[in-house]
Amino acid sequence: MTENQQVLIDSIPQGKLAESNYRLASVAMPEVAEGEVLVKTIAFAITAGTRAGLQGSASYAGAPQTGVVMNATGVGEVVESKDPELPVGAKVMGPTGWQNYSLQKRKQVSVIPDGQDPVHYLGPLGVNGLTAYFGLLQVGQPQAGETVMVSAAAGSVGHLVGQIAKIRQCRVVGVCGSDSKGAVLTQRLGLDAAVNYRDGNYRQSLKEATPDGVDVYFDNTGGTILGSALFRMNVGGRIACCGVVSQYDTDSPEPGPKGVPGLLINKRLTMRGFLVFDFADQYDSARKEIAGWLASGELVSLTDEVRGLKQAPEAFVDLLAGGNLGTRVVRLD
Amino acid sequence: MTENQQVLIDSIPQGKLAESNYRLASVAMPEVAEGEVLVKTIAFAITAGTRAGLQGSASYAGAPQTGVVMNATGVGEVVESKDPELPVGAKVMGPTGWQNYSLQKRKQVSVIPDGQDPVHYLGPLGVNGLTAYFGLLQVGQPQAGETVMVSAAAGSVGHLVGQIAKIRQCRVVGVCGSDSKGAVLTQRLGLDAAVNYRDGNYRQSLKEATPDGVDVYFDNTGGTILGSALFRMNVGGRIACCGVVSQYDTDSPEPGPKGVPGLLINKRLTMRGFLVFDFADQYDSARKEIAGWLASGELVSLTDEVRGLKQAPEAFVDLLAGGNLGTRVVRLD
Repeated sequence: MTENQQVLIDSIPQGKLAESNYRLASVAMPEVAEGEVLVKTIAFAITAGTRAGLQGSASYAGAPQTGVVMNATGVGEVVESKDPELPVGAKVMGPTGWQNYSLQKRKQVSVIPDGQDPVHYLGPLGVNGLTAYFGLLQVGQPQAGETVMVSAAAGSVGHLVGQIAKIRQCRVVGVCGSDSKGAVLTQRLGLDAAVNYRDGNYRQSLKEATPDGVDVYFDNTGGTILGSALFRMNVGGRIACCGVVSQYDTDSPEPGPKGVPGLLINKRLTMRGFLVFDFADQYDSARKEIAGWLASGELVSLTDEVRGLKQAPEAFVDLLAGGNLGTRVVRLD
Repeated sequence: MTENQQVLIDSIPQGKLAESNYRLASVAMPEVAEGEVLVKTIAFAITAGTRAGLQGSASYAGAPQTGVVMNATGVGEVVESKDPELPVGAKVMGPTGWQNYSLQKRKQVSVIPDGQDPVHYLGPLGVNGLTAYFGLLQVGQPQAGETVMVSAAAGSVGHLVGQIAKIRQCRVVGVCGSDSKGAVLTQRLGLDAAVNYRDGNYRQSLKEATPDGVDVYFDNTGGTILGSALFRMNVGGRIACCGVVSQYDTDSPEPGPKGVPGLLINKRLTMRGFLVFDFADQYDSARKEIAGWLASGELVSLTDEVRGLKQAPEAFVDLLAGGNLGTRVVRLD
């Protein structure tokens, strides 16, 4: 094993992302320096938010670069170690990127406890799960009996948001992009209603699905779905701004929704944007609670797996078109 | 005195408001019923927010009607009383509308203490002052040393916001529509900088005026000024959404700012809309603090007076074009 396979960003997308924006590369295995470990990737997550990193300076991810490994959070096993805290055989979650091997340091990874499925660290116990947990509970602050609406409700974050809101005894309405996803939300995950935003009757269906209005809206999309939510919000409602998936796969984002700031005033709404990293000091207690829900079966993790590094670009393009159900993961093992 | 002079809404504006949307009327003096008082108007305020009431159901003021007296908050003196709590001679603030006489009930008016200038109850001690006070201090939550930006900074609410932020030891930048207003803000009211949004160099000037970014933005305008503020906000910043004056004088409001929700997420911003009525239980303590600032000279009330009921429509049209400095008041005494 002397070569590392990678997927590099070959060009910055003009308009929609295409598989041709990526290329495969084969490079020498990296040298492990003191304090580092070499991690063999088991799997990495494909997440819509990384598309924003290819858009330029308006994103928190910074200006995009070509010729570098595509970034991703992954899980893997330590195969060579120059850090006694991370012995060979340890399983970790960290910024592996789209490649078979990566160098990691202790402070940039989370150690996965023995007996825990590493792939859960890309889903409910990883960034997606923590995002759902803190965004819903601390930013949205839902109370039992309130109505929670979530967009991209069958997505990696959304499908966890809806279930956590049900655990907290809310009425939950998920917005998604197909009737088959909607059926999964209501029949398998226990949501009270699902609405397909691609349906011509979307606004009316949303109204019927939220007879008491919406108290908390967890926004993964921005754009027209955010606009529709503003009209359904109750006085005093909270909007947790998590992602803008409707605006990622383009180089000319839409204007913002018309109801801002007029409807915010009339209805005394609070919109708050957040990044999960702001809650890092509370990850441990959150993971403990989420792990409990997984163990009891109250929370179901939907994983949508693809095999092989070469499949990553296609899997990402398809995800941006709404092709995934739950957390999309590329497995390399 | 058997006739009451009134200004009625004659037609709903198509596009911009015009004086011709109003007409004068002369009606019989109203009969005072048990529990009511007849109030002779001393003055009423012209405020941009009432323009929203002529736009239809998107406004919190409800659907517009014609043939009714134009609404306004005013101050006046009780001239006939069938309520022992409001004797003849008492001065009150309440919903007088654009007319010489109105019937009022105890619960819909505030009694103006003896010795207090009644016109202050249309400015710093009235709805404008309370809006500035609660919106800045409770919604915006500025800390000493932070930068506060306010739009419509020479307006009825804005000129009080800027001064209260100075009292709270913030750096304060006001956005206004002319250089002469800007000079009043910096030279007379003590703001640190003023920026003219009508200047072609506005964005660059705003950047130079906010070298440390913006921590709290008090938004009276929405639209492009809100958009410019989003780009200057610091991580963790707060936006108090008070008014949408840029969108009132039209029947086709602009789309919302592009940065919503993308910049809210990247910068972890909170945008919160409010109405002053939500703070009604704290009016007394707020008025006490504001009255102290007026007495000490720390807070200056700018009043822009017009005389005579017939002048009200022109004064309103001119205000919507940015013609006022401070609180515009129509005096009838």
